[in-house]
Amino acid sequence: MADWKNLDELTAYKELEKLSPVDLKTVMAGESGAERVKNCSIPMAEGLAYNYAAKAVDGRITDQLEKLAAEAQLAEKFEELYNGAVINTGEKRLVLHHLTRGQLGKPVMADGVDKRAFYKEQQERIAEFADKVHKGEITNAAGEKFTTVVQIGIGGSDLGPRAMYLALENWAKKTGNFRMEAKFISNVDPDDAAAVLASTDVAHAIFVLVSKSGTTLETLTNQSFVMDALRKQGLDPAKHMIAVTSETSPLASSKDYLAAFYMDDYIGGRYSSTSAVGGAVLSLAFGPEVFAQFLDGAASEDKLAAEKDPKKNAAMMDALIGVYERNVLGYPATAVLPYSQALSRFPAHLQQLDMESNGKSVNRFGDPVSYVTGPIIFGEPGTNGQHSFYQLLHQGKTIVPLQFVGFRKSQIGTDVVIQDTTSQQKLCANVAAQIVAFACGKQDENRNKNFEGGRPSSIIIGDQLTPASLGALLAHFENKVMFQGFLWNVNSFDQEGVQLGKVLAKRVLAHDTEGALQVYSRLLEI
Amino acid sequence: MADWKNLDELTAYKELEKLSPVDLKTVMAGESGAERVKNCSIPMAEGLAYNYAAKAVDGRITDQLEKLAAEAQLAEKFEELYNGAVINTGEKRLVLHHLTRGQLGKPVMADGVDKRAFYKEQQERIAEFADKVHKGEITNAAGEKFTTVVQIGIGGSDLGPRAMYLALENWAKKTGNFRMEAKFISNVDPDDAAAVLASTDVAHAIFVLVSKSGTTLETLTNQSFVMDALRKQGLDPAKHMIAVTSETSPLASSKDYLAAFYMDDYIGGRYSSTSAVGGAVLSLAFGPEVFAQFLDGAASEDKLAAEKDPKKNAAMMDALIGVYERNVLGYPATAVLPYSQALSRFPAHLQQLDMESNGKSVNRFGDPVSYVTGPIIFGEPGTNGQHSFYQLLHQGKTIVPLQFVGFRKSQIGTDVVIQDTTSQQKLCANVAAQIVAFACGKQDENRNKNFEGGRPSSIIIGDQLTPASLGALLAHFENKVMFQGFLWNVNSFDQEGVQLGKVLAKRVLAHDTEGALQVYSRLLEI
Repeated sequence: MADWKNLDELTAYKELEKLSPVDLKTVMAGESGAERVKNCSIPMAEGLAYNYAAKAVDGRITDQLEKLAAEAQLAEKFEELYNGAVINTGEKRLVLHHLTRGQLGKPVMADGVDKRAFYKEQQERIAEFADKVHKGEITNAAGEKFTTVVQIGIGGSDLGPRAMYLALENWAKKTGNFRMEAKFISNVDPDDAAAVLASTDVAHAIFVLVSKSGTTLETLTNQSFVMDALRKQGLDPAKHMIAVTSETSPLASSKDYLAAFYMDDYIGGRYSSTSAVGGAVLSLAFGPEVFAQFLDGAASEDKLAAEKDPKKNAAMMDALIGVYERNVLGYPATAVLPYSQALSRFPAHLQQLDMESNGKSVNRFGDPVSYVTGPIIFGEPGTNGQHSFYQLLHQGKTIVPLQFVGFRKSQIGTDVVIQDTTSQQKLCANVAAQIVAFACGKQDENRNKNFEGGRPSSIIIGDQLTPASLGALLAHFENKVMFQGFLWNVNSFDQEGVQLGKVLAKRVLAHDTEGALQVYSRLLEI
Repeated sequence: MADWKNLDELTAYKELEKLSPVDLKTVMAGESGAERVKNCSIPMAEGLAYNYAAKAVDGRITDQLEKLAAEAQLAEKFEELYNGAVINTGEKRLVLHHLTRGQLGKPVMADGVDKRAFYKEQQERIAEFADKVHKGEITNAAGEKFTTVVQIGIGGSDLGPRAMYLALENWAKKTGNFRMEAKFISNVDPDDAAAVLASTDVAHAIFVLVSKSGTTLETLTNQSFVMDALRKQGLDPAKHMIAVTSETSPLASSKDYLAAFYMDDYIGGRYSSTSAVGGAVLSLAFGPEVFAQFLDGAASEDKLAAEKDPKKNAAMMDALIGVYERNVLGYPATAVLPYSQALSRFPAHLQQLDMESNGKSVNRFGDPVSYVTGPIIFGEPGTNGQHSFYQLLHQGKTIVPLQFVGFRKSQIGTDVVIQDTTSQQKLCANVAAQIVAFACGKQDENRNKNFEGGRPSSIIIGDQLTPASLGALLAHFENKVMFQGFLWNVNSFDQEGVQLGKVLAKRVLAHDTEGALQVYSRLLEI
């Protein structure tokens, strides 16, 4: 059994704090910089590589991080997790999202079944269903093919699947794998559902209701919204809806759905992209084979994350450096900057994944910790971000570590040559340039044009964004967040911080308020 | 002439630092909380109100902030700005975006013309052009009406206009003001342009090329991309494109465009939504009358921002409290959380507006400042954010001040009653609940379910998001950022921090690299 200790109880961490910091500007200059870029690279799955040359670490620090990884038993804890230990202590649950894409360790039995077999069965049931929809064996009441899939869900049932859909939409269109358009309804704002429905041919749409408990108020409200719209067109909602839910939810056996696919309590919303939550909508949109490739990519990356040596384990190294930056160097935030328009909503997904997992103040035993935990996460695709908030990143008073992602090839392949280079070359040139600009800076006598440098970044480089490499990329960040949770000794798999707002909102709706809440309610005329 | 001093040179700031902090949790409890919500409200234009009851300030602190506003001469500086002083010291330029929507002070002459008249003329020329397009007097070569407008621009030419378009799209459809769909191409990633073009009927599309200098590489590259696509369909690009540029740019007199509308160097990209940059695309999409209402809303709010007393000036109070939170309380970030799906990209626009304006380390004279300046800005619409990163906001180790926005009515008006309340009521109940949850917290013996509270927020409440209230909302934030720039004594109107990356990217493309940059270039196969 692993030993769960707070970060500041670990000897290796105390030693890490004593090490003098690295002057990134100096080490990244000249030949030393070139050597770093060549050497500080960790292979990932599906041709990706994590390069941390532009992080403010050197051999002393990475050696110490290695000791920290060993003392914090990161690999052992991951092993316990994938072998089915109750890692989610707050809710007393196993944490099994890795099993949706592969068997890393021993068979895991829960609820009387082999969970890998359970997740695989759901994947196969979805594949069969999606194939029938694509072949026109499952149709609307008029016998016509469905042409659009609309996911109804919020949080993890929305952000991950939406980000993955957008990431692969153009790839699928280019490679002949595009089956149906996907849309998403998430917000309880009635304008969200109304606008999506107004632009959707609902007679040919299949809706995926995603709610693990079957009680998420936003999602059930939006389901009613959709059912109203279907009935208004004389359509039977039960012929247009499927459910993704837990087997014990009231939705599981309801006749309101064409089919129900199952998830369970061992996969949190933000970790559910590779479960039926992502599986239904992505299999319908791109075909089950594409979804399977995505899972394979994630599974390959998970295997690498089981490696004990952080110098061979990109997720672990990324996690360790992030904790060094957060706790020793004191940086409050991390920016995620994919140089790929297809990853436009990937930062929003990571924002949930990371901030909901590790934005905690108590350790896994419920005791307050005296060090900072998860950082603020934000980001937009480059080069758009360059023309937006990079000013602060380059010359602001707060240093923000950066997490770049870049691919050598575009997805669609249509390009244009301007000033002797393609757009794809310009895109790649920009990300390379930014890394060096942030790290090395540039002296200028005009202080307004001076760049101090010393701003750390890493980059994940891949050949192309495909289902498999997207799976690997997603798994990398899921595993990074998990390892950081182990280091901070927090439970990365619950989210008690979302409860109080729900309770108070219900009181507002019941007009059971007083004091400030009552006055706000009046101002908003609820 | 105003006296430009660093924040830490101001007596009022030194006094502010000495004041003991407010225990937000205590003052927001019970009747005291109710009184605060009633009293801490500043009327804005177009029926909006800024409520700062849930900010950690009290009479002592707001009195001191008032003294700070006076000593920092915020109102006088704004007056100098709108009367045409060279406020953008780095680039030696006037700062005239307010003049695009109204005349706040004296006539401003520059380049030999009255600038208010110049901006109005551009607005009228755009209105005339848009009317002709809508009436079918300006058509494609086949004499058919244009049905889509595609903006080609990046940074301020993209984020602001895109956010405003999304904010009004559903309102326009509901009210019969929707004229044409708008799309946006921004990223140099070739997949961005390729995907937009693939989903666009280019034969019936009119493209708006936006580049002040006429030399923005991303934008010119994407223009070529579009021109290629048009030619491939046998279409003449010159019949499908208009330009928004400066009068001195090479584009201004080019025969490649159906028409050219002008901006100038006195309006930075991020402040250009109310200029021709936003004007062309929004007038084509919604009609010139709607754009005029948007400008009127902004102009009304600008007038209120000229008020000296911060207790009557929402933008000034917002700015002062933000500086207190950043510099005295030490909070690194601010989250923007509109409870309106229509404002889905408004936080991304504010991210640029704020971080590019005030993410600076030197004052307006080029001397390094020894205090922190602009915060990190991020956000997503509620209730989506609640199911994502709010966990960290409620229970994380870093306190993040929050900027809520909420409206009593939805835009489309279609709604559904579930559990006796509409979705709009649920939306409003959630924002009210969140403010109180963040401020007051909730004690729980289970520390994992404990909410410490003391997390400050403000809210801007309006009746409905319309063109006029959107204009007021935008102007509020532009003016807030401006006042904060005055307080920090930075130049909020240049962006030298974006230059180094551009220079290095050019060197990569010219294969003129060495050291780390060369190795990164090889890894990316440029």
